[in-house]
Amino acid sequence: MFDKEYDVIVVGGGHAGAEAAAAAANMGSSTLLVTMNLQNIGQMSCNPAMGGIAKGQIVREIDALGGYSGIVSDRSAIQFKMLNKSKGPAMWSPRTQNDRMRFAEEWRLLLEQTPNVDFYQEMVSGLLVENGKAVGVKTSLGLKIKGKSVVLTNGTFLNGLIHIGEKQFGGGRAGESAATGITEELVQLGFESGRMKTGTPPRVDGRSLDYSVMIPQPGDSKPEKFSYLDTHKLTTQRDCYMTHTSELVHDLLREGFDRSPMFNGRIKSLGPRYCPSIEDKINRFADKDRHQIFVEPEGWNTVEVYVNGFSTSLPEDVQFKALRSVKGFENVKFFRAGYAIEYDYFPPTQLKHTLETKLVDNLFFAGQINGTTGYEEAASQGLMAGINAHLKVYDQDPFILNRDEAYIGVLVDDLITKGTEEPYRMFTSRAEYRTLLRQDNADLRLTPRGYEIGLASEERLKNMERKEKESSDFVSFFKNTSFNPDEINPILERLDSSLVKQSDKLFKVFSRPKVTMDHMLQLDKVSEYVTENYLNTDVLEQTEIQVKYSGYIEKEKNNADKLLRLEGIKIPKNFDYAKLKSLSFEAREKLKEIEPVTISQASRISGVSPADISVLLVHLGR
Amino acid sequence: MFDKEYDVIVVGGGHAGAEAAAAAANMGSSTLLVTMNLQNIGQMSCNPAMGGIAKGQIVREIDALGGYSGIVSDRSAIQFKMLNKSKGPAMWSPRTQNDRMRFAEEWRLLLEQTPNVDFYQEMVSGLLVENGKAVGVKTSLGLKIKGKSVVLTNGTFLNGLIHIGEKQFGGGRAGESAATGITEELVQLGFESGRMKTGTPPRVDGRSLDYSVMIPQPGDSKPEKFSYLDTHKLTTQRDCYMTHTSELVHDLLREGFDRSPMFNGRIKSLGPRYCPSIEDKINRFADKDRHQIFVEPEGWNTVEVYVNGFSTSLPEDVQFKALRSVKGFENVKFFRAGYAIEYDYFPPTQLKHTLETKLVDNLFFAGQINGTTGYEEAASQGLMAGINAHLKVYDQDPFILNRDEAYIGVLVDDLITKGTEEPYRMFTSRAEYRTLLRQDNADLRLTPRGYEIGLASEERLKNMERKEKESSDFVSFFKNTSFNPDEINPILERLDSSLVKQSDKLFKVFSRPKVTMDHMLQLDKVSEYVTENYLNTDVLEQTEIQVKYSGYIEKEKNNADKLLRLEGIKIPKNFDYAKLKSLSFEAREKLKEIEPVTISQASRISGVSPADISVLLVHLGR
Repeated sequence: MFDKEYDVIVVGGGHAGAEAAAAAANMGSSTLLVTMNLQNIGQMSCNPAMGGIAKGQIVREIDALGGYSGIVSDRSAIQFKMLNKSKGPAMWSPRTQNDRMRFAEEWRLLLEQTPNVDFYQEMVSGLLVENGKAVGVKTSLGLKIKGKSVVLTNGTFLNGLIHIGEKQFGGGRAGESAATGITEELVQLGFESGRMKTGTPPRVDGRSLDYSVMIPQPGDSKPEKFSYLDTHKLTTQRDCYMTHTSELVHDLLREGFDRSPMFNGRIKSLGPRYCPSIEDKINRFADKDRHQIFVEPEGWNTVEVYVNGFSTSLPEDVQFKALRSVKGFENVKFFRAGYAIEYDYFPPTQLKHTLETKLVDNLFFAGQINGTTGYEEAASQGLMAGINAHLKVYDQDPFILNRDEAYIGVLVDDLITKGTEEPYRMFTSRAEYRTLLRQDNADLRLTPRGYEIGLASEERLKNMERKEKESSDFVSFFKNTSFNPDEINPILERLDSSLVKQSDKLFKVFSRPKVTMDHMLQLDKVSEYVTENYLNTDVLEQTEIQVKYSGYIEKEKNNADKLLRLEGIKIPKNFDYAKLKSLSFEAREKLKEIEPVTISQASRISGVSPADISVLLVHLGR
Repeated sequence: MFDKEYDVIVVGGGHAGAEAAAAAANMGSSTLLVTMNLQNIGQMSCNPAMGGIAKGQIVREIDALGGYSGIVSDRSAIQFKMLNKSKGPAMWSPRTQNDRMRFAEEWRLLLEQTPNVDFYQEMVSGLLVENGKAVGVKTSLGLKIKGKSVVLTNGTFLNGLIHIGEKQFGGGRAGESAATGITEELVQLGFESGRMKTGTPPRVDGRSLDYSVMIPQPGDSKPEKFSYLDTHKLTTQRDCYMTHTSELVHDLLREGFDRSPMFNGRIKSLGPRYCPSIEDKINRFADKDRHQIFVEPEGWNTVEVYVNGFSTSLPEDVQFKALRSVKGFENVKFFRAGYAIEYDYFPPTQLKHTLETKLVDNLFFAGQINGTTGYEEAASQGLMAGINAHLKVYDQDPFILNRDEAYIGVLVDDLITKGTEEPYRMFTSRAEYRTLLRQDNADLRLTPRGYEIGLASEERLKNMERKEKESSDFVSFFKNTSFNPDEINPILERLDSSLVKQSDKLFKVFSRPKVTMDHMLQLDKVSEYVTENYLNTDVLEQTEIQVKYSGYIEKEKNNADKLLRLEGIKIPKNFDYAKLKSLSFEAREKLKEIEPVTISQASRISGVSPADISVLLVHLGR
């Protein structure tokens, strides 16, 4: 039936699969996306949001390289927030709330509009492998489809097992069948597999909530967007709301612990540490008398609401009773209960930097199958796997991002060198060079590289080159242009910043903490420069960051160098990590368990961040 | 968990379930819609279209009573056609092509906006029955939900079994799990159950088709719509296309017959006679060298295409190879293969006219569970079941439509008095009074009745009363206003209709076959009347039909009376029905099999139409 041999076959249509198919096709590979249900392409299985801390940077990186996640997120956004705006720009993290239905539809339509992408609906149940090389896939109906490379992005579907209270049943997502056959075949080929767990909270009827007693969480007053292309910014937005659990809620939840699959041993695998279930939170942080709950609308028009922070696999009646005691939820009506799901993954140390497997040539893994969690983590792996699947077929050099180039580089390097035993999520702390890996400069960092491999369009490149040149020129303008005290002092006075006595370069006063681009624009010579050069807001932002942040970037680079030099330092045996309170909770647990012999070894442990290493160094007297 | 006792619990969210929930809730019942996947409410499981012959009339009837199918269809339409416009108005049948995603989304949002409708996602696996009365449902997770009445609308999900070639697997729809437990429990309660079959064609990639060799099937140049409310008419439309199978295609299909579940005995149940699979068509009509195929877009923007007329459960490779030989499909790419599905139904003779079961009080069935096929048939049953479930709970008189009031009346009466052994589909020929049951007057027939029971809104009633009064006045105007030959003869001359010599009433010349409202409007006195009275197009259409069709309606009524009088006539034993070629194919088969003793008995056989009875009467010399 499929007489054609595809260049790239992508199995799965979630965030990873969709990006993989788009990337391979846009680079010129004839691509087939095979999925169990074509109506579910681009589904947001869990919360209706994209981005967030470190994750928003990843979406920007995907976009800068020529992926679609940023565009899809922008088109389906119902709210935009730049998180951490009060901190340094390395921490600024874009995040959108999204219309779940619209998000999936935009993905589907964008893929349909991508030449070279074919679609087929069926369950892939095995691989075609010849001489240690993937040459296609087999379907459950017995079809054989030939492909020069294969990308597996099976998400939570491989032998998926859903848990709610004492009940368990097979499924890849609520209401969808699990996928079988692939794990068994990969194990036979010599792969090591494991089980992981994730979960999702109840969805409820927004009409049954009392928002008047919750705290509104509106979007930014000047909403930005993800994509460096000309997607639209939001003009209207929907609010989220915040409320809290209480001791009573915790007590009600505890009453169900004996029927919890988490606590009675039925769920054996590890869930995402930083996305714990509510029962996990009240168990691990027994001293906390309340936890935040974010009430997120599922779209522009629907009344369905996502209860962020209340992920649970307790029995339905326990979920319900406890949620009814949350402020504003007194009359809550459920749309569906939360649940946990266990699924197969393959420890990612079995992969090369290209996300190709070491055991089988031309076979690539991306997303949850590699032990990660998160839409953005999945999408970026899909992108990298799609790119490298294409490059492999066309005998071109692999495409690898370094740790100092992109969060995506950090992600892949962490996965394949350290592996992960629990669902891996990205944090800014995982990046040694996070001051370099900002959301504002992902295009400057990556668009030239995306263009070079034929993925990012010329439009992207031109746009990025304009921004780069204009902001560099503008920085020079500040370095070369002098102020006189009379014009600058009134501004400094208003800011309560010490006055200047003699003329100097603008750069110097602009570098002061309280002084922003907005203040600079109050100077005629600056605003005239902007008008004369038709500068856009992206250039103003970029210039501001480069001026105000240059010192900080230097300092971080020095720190990184220092770390390298101090690598050989030994850690005493039986070192008591518990007393080092400034270590992260995760680091303390991991260090105690693994007992690294050197700082160097400690730094390679998953979950031990550069910040933790600094703490250790300080304590060890360096 | 569900401490609340609902008035009405509806199980299933397809056409039947959605209408049932909407009707009960709008009449004031607290209503719960339970479904296995809330994201699949209002799914069009088969072709992306609503209405058609007899079915379009049903959609209008649903709308006139206050149901939602017409509104949802209008809002999601991508093409509108009034079928049979060249025949008498009893045959005029509205039909839309719909955007599949938009249709489901509109249903979901309309239901969400309906007060009194709650939603819950889970599989219902059984009923709560006390003293022969339904008092709620049980879910697969063990939840008990109390309800004063229960409407089952399980579609093809009850023990659904999907067939493609020699493969078979459980499922309610492609990619969705089957529902288990309910059949077994109903059988234990004493219900008789059976199996039926239906099927669906492949979906293909529109980009792979050559439309230039197909025949475009555009929508109407002046598109109408379904709803009597103020939904919008289409301003742009998408074309469908027609092509044909060929001897070669049939030969290629025949090569797979030994692997067909239809022919090797694996599928034992009967499929819809008037929606046969392509293998069924070439088998039953072996003399036909080609069959029509309609290529229908699945939405405004998607490239996915529905291959209407090519329903099949042959092996994937056979489907593919044969379809590739259809003109325009030489390079076709599949999105997914066609398949057949077998599912449980309950012979509808076990129901009362209210669609309540005879065995269990307060339990109602609607849709495919009753052995019907078709979205419109399902939706109208859902509406009637929802209405009567509400009325039962509130101790009010049941709501029953007679055969001379509505196609819905014919449908329900046929089902519960004749039963059906194969999927029942509506035809105009099933209605004895089809001249009365027109698409143009569904509001006049039914809106007062819908208003009376508290379902149709006052807006609907007012709108219908205006139309009724204005058209009745306008008919009187034609009856009372005279023309003089000088003004009318130029028009008649252009129409090649015989000229008049003396003045007479306008009604008389308007009754002539070639004369239409458009011609009448060329007379100043007519166009002035229209302007002065601000008449809308619905009034012009209604008036035209009442003037031009009055004689025909009379004649049909007489025929119906005659039939009644001749009811006692005997049919000779071993009568050779095969020689009566003007009998429908289905009637010949059924009459031969059942060998009715009297005309009266013959008329009650499912599939034997009033037209067939007339043929018999003529032959028997009456």
